[in-house]
Amino acid sequence: MKLNCDLGESFGQWTMGRDEAVMPLIDEANIACGFHAGDPLVMQQTVALAVKHQVSIGAHPSYPDLQGFGRRSMAMTSAELIAHLHYQLGALQGICQVNNTSLAFIKPHGALYNDMMRDIALFTAICRAISQFDQNLVLVIQALPDTSKWQTIAEQFQLTLRFEAFADRHYQDNGLLVPRSEANAVITDAEQAHKRIKQLAATGQLLSINGKPLTLQVDTICVHSDTDNALEIASKLASIN
Amino acid sequence: MKLNCDLGESFGQWTMGRDEAVMPLIDEANIACGFHAGDPLVMQQTVALAVKHQVSIGAHPSYPDLQGFGRRSMAMTSAELIAHLHYQLGALQGICQVNNTSLAFIKPHGALYNDMMRDIALFTAICRAISQFDQNLVLVIQALPDTSKWQTIAEQFQLTLRFEAFADRHYQDNGLLVPRSEANAVITDAEQAHKRIKQLAATGQLLSINGKPLTLQVDTICVHSDTDNALEIASKLASIN
Amino acid sequence: MKLNCDLGESFGQWTMGRDEAVMPLIDEANIACGFHAGDPLVMQQTVALAVKHQVSIGAHPSYPDLQGFGRRSMAMTSAELIAHLHYQLGALQGICQVNNTSLAFIKPHGALYNDMMRDIALFTAICRAISQFDQNLVLVIQALPDTSKWQTIAEQFQLTLRFEAFADRHYQDNGLLVPRSEANAVITDAEQAHKRIKQLAATGQLLSINGKPLTLQVDTICVHSDTDNALEIASKLASIN
Amino acid sequence: MKLNCDLGESFGQWTMGRDEAVMPLIDEANIACGFHAGDPLVMQQTVALAVKHQVSIGAHPSYPDLQGFGRRSMAMTSAELIAHLHYQLGALQGICQVNNTSLAFIKPHGALYNDMMRDIALFTAICRAISQFDQNLVLVIQALPDTSKWQTIAEQFQLTLRFEAFADRHYQDNGLLVPRSEANAVITDAEQAHKRIKQLAATGQLLSINGKPLTLQVDTICVHSDTDNALEIASKLASIN
Repeated sequence: MKLNCDLGESFGQWTMGRDEAVMPLIDEANIACGFHAGDPLVMQQTVALAVKHQVSIGAHPSYPDLQGFGRRSMAMTSAELIAHLHYQLGALQGICQVNNTSLAFIKPHGALYNDMMRDIALFTAICRAISQFDQNLVLVIQALPDTSKWQTIAEQFQLTLRFEAFADRHYQDNGLLVPRSEANAVITDAEQAHKRIKQLAATGQLLSINGKPLTLQVDTICVHSDTDNALEIASKLASIN
Repeated sequence: MKLNCDLGESFGQWTMGRDEAVMPLIDEANIACGFHAGDPLVMQQTVALAVKHQVSIGAHPSYPDLQGFGRRSMAMTSAELIAHLHYQLGALQGICQVNNTSLAFIKPHGALYNDMMRDIALFTAICRAISQFDQNLVLVIQALPDTSKWQTIAEQFQLTLRFEAFADRHYQDNGLLVPRSEANAVITDAEQAHKRIKQLAATGQLLSINGKPLTLQVDTICVHSDTDNALEIASKLASIN
Repeated sequence: MKLNCDLGESFGQWTMGRDEAVMPLIDEANIACGFHAGDPLVMQQTVALAVKHQVSIGAHPSYPDLQGFGRRSMAMTSAELIAHLHYQLGALQGICQVNNTSLAFIKPHGALYNDMMRDIALFTAICRAISQFDQNLVLVIQALPDTSKWQTIAEQFQLTLRFEAFADRHYQDNGLLVPRSEANAVITDAEQAHKRIKQLAATGQLLSINGKPLTLQVDTICVHSDTDNALEIASKLASIN
Repeated sequence: MKLNCDLGESFGQWTMGRDEAVMPLIDEANIACGFHAGDPLVMQQTVALAVKHQVSIGAHPSYPDLQGFGRRSMAMTSAELIAHLHYQLGALQGICQVNNTSLAFIKPHGALYNDMMRDIALFTAICRAISQFDQNLVLVIQALPDTSKWQTIAEQFQLTLRFEAFADRHYQDNGLLVPRSEANAVITDAEQAHKRIKQLAATGQLLSINGKPLTLQVDTICVHSDTDNALEIASKLASIN
């Protein structure tokens, strides 16, 4: 299993996350594209940092919502969403180009990610956007007990999916995340996060918030850079691999 | 001489210019990249329209200033400006990519264009940004009686310059434009615009607002899409070529 | 019945509506507050125009969504929404203050308006925001066959409601508007709009798209300034009063 | 001498400064109005915090430049700037209104502040904006050896000026600040800041970076909340009063 992290989420004078400390620990960087976080200079610095540490670069596009950090669902048409994705993919690809590197994958951010996991029409629009842009871009989605619904669509667009689990989030019994609006959504105890992922690596199972074992096929583990103790969590997880 | 026009300057529900009518008349479209005008959907539609009419596509990047339409100078560092250009070039290139076309040139917009013509350090930053992104992108700047200063810099970055004159703007005696803040800055009489450019094509000279002949080497003629009678002006100029 | 119109919906260099022509015809101006349209200068000019024509001024606040013109629902918490309303009300009130006038009412815009008519929790948040800001501000909502649900909430916050019908929109049988996503949502024929509202004034009834009579208690008639023929529609309606 | 601090400069998910710790230490809070920092929710929380600690509230308006944190000069016309100030003043006043408090003063932010101290036409526009909004709002500007130029203008608009010195910034010999672009612009050593201001309180003089004594009439001392050790500096200064 690889380790991925959302990075480049600073904006202007505002800093988020500890990108310089986290980058050496991870395999894959999901880099914000300016719509929920990141600005051109932050993107430039983040891509350069990823190149320095030979970390694979993915686009982390979002609904256009800086003030809400992309965590609010927005009712967009498919055509709007597809154009917004092409814009963000292009912008980050442009920054990659001047750093002599390229995009390897895409992982939608925040509300767009959550909406993609519960609205198959939205997921289809995302697949269409990617296939129009570059069919070699891998799409990262959430590992679930049954992902056949998403795989069927991805295959129609000849896209490759990869599946991630969250080291810093609790799960519901149905395999979806406990929403951030609930108190126990986020795991900030590095030891607990480490134990859960070690168990997942060993058994292929993750326990839900109610103790139900969830069997998940997982390619990559995510830590959010704005989670408390994100650095400690990433550090412990890096030692598993 | 080619004919170029700033297009794709609508934004969301707001329309600007008559892109569908103008596009068939021109050779080169300077397409807004979302920072002074244009949004992802507008960019998509404009690039598709350019492809349909086999019009060459250029990026028309700006200072980040939607409300001021990029017509206000902003004090940015070179590093900021360069990253802002890479972002906009990448975004438009991404839209081009999904339309199976590519960028041919870049022409800065509004205050950025004017600042580039009076601040050689800013022009140098723009050249650096382009050379880092793609040395084959041609940079369009204003034709002046003496452009050696800009050519020297461009050569250092191995960039090709092209020079434009404005069909819808009056000139000062020094070859710079009469600022928009002055009453007689803009030419809206299609007949007058046509006469001036025909004379330029025939003699290589354009008359300043005071009647002084300006000798200019011109590759392409610009009409602004938001000038009154832009369509009529473009229509008359198209007949010259 | 009064006549109201959404005005001040230009932004920067982009013009929308024919405010100077419409303002003399109407009784109440719903003025955009910068979140879906309007900028400080547009707001200043619109308020000054309203004062000149002795038109009553209302705030027309929105979700924060310039690119989508406030026509996309956004998932905001009540606390966020309330603060966003206070901000917009204050901003427009500030512009009123320098023009020696004041706000008389509030009418939410676009998706926020539609969401308020179908989500009573959202409507409650809007009432709370207004009552905290100024209990004398009248809240304009859509006239429906049965508005008791909204009236009960408004009374809890000691707010006065007023009810509007739309001259330029078709109605469903349940009294809600035909959504803009459908082809026949908007009425652009001034004669037809006039006939419908004259009938409403005479009989208290408006016909749905299927010909079903809807009995509505209406205080004010709305024309959208970006509807084709808005000026002609407003002109005809002004003659009824 | 009073103690003032720029607060409310968080934005969405991004935190800046330690407002909860600083607020109890200061007399006057300069609260961001959403154009360089602050959003409606942040403004609501900051005003409520100021009320709780009986801190006087001032507006801290800016050029519209979130990504640049208002630290980039922008070429705006007087009419634009005045409308932008009215909008921001109104927005913050609206938030004050729902918190049963009101604005006491205004202090421009960042580049707008610096531009006001070197461009008397810009300062005049600011005075005009305030006098149109509320002549009782006090305008805070930088204490300089000679402030007669600014006082003359302020008197024409019947405005009251107050003068501030900076605890966390070095001064040039002419009394202006060492620009942030220079290495030694900012003072982060709380002991040094404290010593300088104690000397100012005792002698009316502050030493320039070159050791030249500057005689300044100072009403209030500023600490920037994003300066390293801002809390420690404010804490030491609070003990002087």
